[in-house]
Amino acid sequence: MKISFVGAGNVAWHLAQAFENAGHVVNEVYSRDSQNARLLTTLLYDATIQPDLNFAESESALIVIAAADDALAGIIERIVLPDGVMLVHTSGTQSLAELQRLVGIYSDVPVRTGVLYPLQTFTKGVPLDYAQIPFCIEATDADTEQELTALARSVSTQVYRVDSEERQVLHIGAVFACNFTNHLLTIAHDLLAREQLDFTLLKPLIRETCEKALASTDPALAQTGPARRNDWSITSQHLAYLQPVSPEWTGLYRQLTESIRLRHFGMD
Amino acid sequence: MKISFVGAGNVAWHLAQAFENAGHVVNEVYSRDSQNARLLTTLLYDATIQPDLNFAESESALIVIAAADDALAGIIERIVLPDGVMLVHTSGTQSLAELQRLVGIYSDVPVRTGVLYPLQTFTKGVPLDYAQIPFCIEATDADTEQELTALARSVSTQVYRVDSEERQVLHIGAVFACNFTNHLLTIAHDLLAREQLDFTLLKPLIRETCEKALASTDPALAQTGPARRNDWSITSQHLAYLQPVSPEWTGLYRQLTESIRLRHFGMD
Repeated sequence: MKISFVGAGNVAWHLAQAFENAGHVVNEVYSRDSQNARLLTTLLYDATIQPDLNFAESESALIVIAAADDALAGIIERIVLPDGVMLVHTSGTQSLAELQRLVGIYSDVPVRTGVLYPLQTFTKGVPLDYAQIPFCIEATDADTEQELTALARSVSTQVYRVDSEERQVLHIGAVFACNFTNHLLTIAHDLLAREQLDFTLLKPLIRETCEKALASTDPALAQTGPARRNDWSITSQHLAYLQPVSPEWTGLYRQLTESIRLRHFGMD
Repeated sequence: MKISFVGAGNVAWHLAQAFENAGHVVNEVYSRDSQNARLLTTLLYDATIQPDLNFAESESALIVIAAADDALAGIIERIVLPDGVMLVHTSGTQSLAELQRLVGIYSDVPVRTGVLYPLQTFTKGVPLDYAQIPFCIEATDADTEQELTALARSVSTQVYRVDSEERQVLHIGAVFACNFTNHLLTIAHDLLAREQLDFTLLKPLIRETCEKALASTDPALAQTGPARRNDWSITSQHLAYLQPVSPEWTGLYRQLTESIRLRHFGMD
């Protein structure tokens, strides 16, 4: 399949290369940041930098908008599309209905819309096993759904039909499971750094925590720690240490402890 | 070395077997819960169940108290120790000074005290690579420190001298990095379960998040997500979804988002 990208950030950086490795062709890459577009095209076989959002002459069957959510409306307002092209976004949050609505307002030609949401955290230059990435597909018609599913299956073994509401819930779950957990690791790092203690000391614990959660069908079964043991003596010692160090960390410690108690003992 | 255990919970279950696999001998196991003591002794070569806290006749050079923190004082109050034995606890929180103080009050014979804190999350029956577990050692005298270090080194390659305050900071860091992250995974699981979505969908993301953090010296560098991109549009959509579902999850989402903004943009 011939594919064009709008956006050259972390998601486009990974998807474009993964699609080409699966035998597809990336034709054009557009980015507000031409430096990013240039970087990505140098990694692709024969892609060109698209200087603006006029894709009228594009031979691509699919245009992938891999951009920040709040840029979506502005892109649809300005993009010029070839007749009958498939237009998808990669967002966990934007509904398909919203994409359809915007295309209905701004496109002069008929366009088929869909969603191709890869449920993963992407960083440029960090290699991933694409075969294990869940691709969540949604489309306005059965043909588009079938074509997007085939495209995703050419890259990954984990392809699911997920509607807009389910996709939003997955995305919120992903924020808790990835973004927020990573931030807690950052706080642990910062706490240790204050005492010149090496973050490496925590790594076996982090690895084990992660492996237990991945082996379980419900991470609640692997919960340990003072809150799970309902040990107020340790909790108050920890809070007494944290209070003068950071009221913010104290607040998080307290709220997370209460949440564990609520989940495991039904009390707060 | 001959070793006795007070406590037969998760920590004792692992340490006792690890020590025996390294060539030491576990003599006695005492537990308030005699069922637990029985279970553990069946897994050891020649250990007997100790029916009470009278260790006066024990031949062990080391007695390990692997019990809940709030049980420590009660144990020291009642335990009868052989002359010159080493007495250690495995707690991340209790200071060595507190152990010394209690022993000074209650023991009729001279006893050497120390701390042997394994920085890991233990679950009975879940195998661990002990060689990778950081053992944090503290002792009241150089001889005891040396003996505890040799014992820990017979099990693990990661042995550190850590004083009581550093140990407490490590323990608080461990609560953030292990207990709280696991609880966030539980919330992600519960969110998905409400929509009959399989937790398995999040596992590649969890694995990748963990691997990025383990590969980095500072997890802040691996932070992604709406809060890190300062994307309020997604944040407010997520909060709007969460509010009617769970005020508690809404509060955590809000507070963690603010904490990420504070860490990465210096604002809240």
